[in-house]
Amino acid sequence: MNSSDYAAIIEQSLFDFLPSKDCNEKRLIEAMQYSLEAGGKRVRPRLVLEFNELCSGKTESALPFACAVEMIHTYSLIHDDLPCMDDDDLRRGKPANHKVFGEDIALLAGDALLTLAFETITCDNTVSLSGADSCCKAAAVLARYAGANGMVGGQVIDLISENTNAPVEILQEMDYKKTACLIKAACELGCICAGADDVKIKAASQYGECIGIAFQIQDDILDVISSDEELGKPVGSDKENSKSTYVSLLGIDECKKIVQSLTNEAVNALKVFDADSSSLKNMAYQLANRSN
Amino acid sequence: MNSSDYAAIIEQSLFDFLPSKDCNEKRLIEAMQYSLEAGGKRVRPRLVLEFNELCSGKTESALPFACAVEMIHTYSLIHDDLPCMDDDDLRRGKPANHKVFGEDIALLAGDALLTLAFETITCDNTVSLSGADSCCKAAAVLARYAGANGMVGGQVIDLISENTNAPVEILQEMDYKKTACLIKAACELGCICAGADDVKIKAASQYGECIGIAFQIQDDILDVISSDEELGKPVGSDKENSKSTYVSLLGIDECKKIVQSLTNEAVNALKVFDADSSSLKNMAYQLANRSN
Repeated sequence: MNSSDYAAIIEQSLFDFLPSKDCNEKRLIEAMQYSLEAGGKRVRPRLVLEFNELCSGKTESALPFACAVEMIHTYSLIHDDLPCMDDDDLRRGKPANHKVFGEDIALLAGDALLTLAFETITCDNTVSLSGADSCCKAAAVLARYAGANGMVGGQVIDLISENTNAPVEILQEMDYKKTACLIKAACELGCICAGADDVKIKAASQYGECIGIAFQIQDDILDVISSDEELGKPVGSDKENSKSTYVSLLGIDECKKIVQSLTNEAVNALKVFDADSSSLKNMAYQLANRSN
Repeated sequence: MNSSDYAAIIEQSLFDFLPSKDCNEKRLIEAMQYSLEAGGKRVRPRLVLEFNELCSGKTESALPFACAVEMIHTYSLIHDDLPCMDDDDLRRGKPANHKVFGEDIALLAGDALLTLAFETITCDNTVSLSGADSCCKAAAVLARYAGANGMVGGQVIDLISENTNAPVEILQEMDYKKTACLIKAACELGCICAGADDVKIKAASQYGECIGIAFQIQDDILDVISSDEELGKPVGSDKENSKSTYVSLLGIDECKKIVQSLTNEAVNALKVFDADSSSLKNMAYQLANRSN
């Protein structure tokens, strides 16, 4: 399957898991659907499906896990955009959820998506496909990486270090938690729902961690390139940012080296899998070399 | 055990499930703890423990489920108090979470508590105590009753029907979803973690639904009595509320009858249990006859 085949399957499945709109809380379901539809490249759910395939799992069984990860990602974006957080009016070129549905419904749509993620991976149908052991393990992994010491913790570190010159260690921890943890969870879940052993789960986890951090550093690099280009300055010359980034702390060349090295480490981790992992190898290179 | 014994056990257990504060996201853990500590009568987790006992389960095995329900209840209060929702400065006489920690941390503390609830009932330790089947079943039940067609859905119906004269059917659905669903979940979870059969789970569910709705109607009655008494008016004489309540629609006497009848129905449902259910019987009567 190519990337758009994956996206199509995932999008169909996301809508299948949404509650029916035939209810008095219709507006809530519409708000949940609005943000699920406004998705990006579906990197996280695709990782679930790819690792599941690599471990000889069936796509049908992996879809609830893939959708759960995307629901968590989507809820985090809705809450992130709220006025009391980043106060963003736009998300991927479309009005943010709260600009369309109001802050109250947006808050609740985020809460409902987070809750739906856990319902999706523990409901009877998913248990009958993957077994209760795998479903519990997946729910616990997802909650740990998405929670107080994972994604949400990363957002708190981000808030606290705003307007301070955070050292590189804090930046690393923030990016690890805020971005890499959920990607890591996606890779682990793909193996877990296929019933893979701990060696494979650990390798998937390492792959996810490396591409997750590389993804965030590449983001910082692209931010600097695009804003410097817009302003007509030499790339990397603007060091007067209010907030530390990898680029402001380490310089653009060092950052490119780190992205390269993390990508190699991710690709190396794939060696424990017997089946053909070229698709995940390519995905790592594509994310590292992307220009937007 | 009496009610304060239950509360003490639950409170100790809640803190045991909280992540350590020895981390860079310490402020988040403090915010989570602040609201968990500011708890009320711990009705929901106590129901988990009581039904678990009634089904011959061990208290130790039921504590993760009891705490998960209380974490969900607590997150919902934090989000409810936010300026974009009810905008309440006080909760149980103490400053609301966002008044102490800021809106951004309060939002994230709610998200983290919701996530922690699901981690708590699916983690390795809980699975080893209750088995993966019970943990999955409990997680799915909790998510369904707390989510888009449960508690969160009830909050949306509440928002939508604000400043309208909602008919009694809408009010019933709102109270069922907003208040009764999580109480129902607590009762079911108590049976599920003890490995009880479907007949018992269904009876517990009916008990929970009845006392949940009765609880909400009693709340409406107490609101009217206290505000009319404050204003020196005859009780029940003020019909000019901007929002429908049971009392404004049905009158105070009819409401008292409904509370009584729901309480009797709850107590009747307990008949399927062989063990002594007098504690749950008393709890139903106490909630129905409470004066604050």
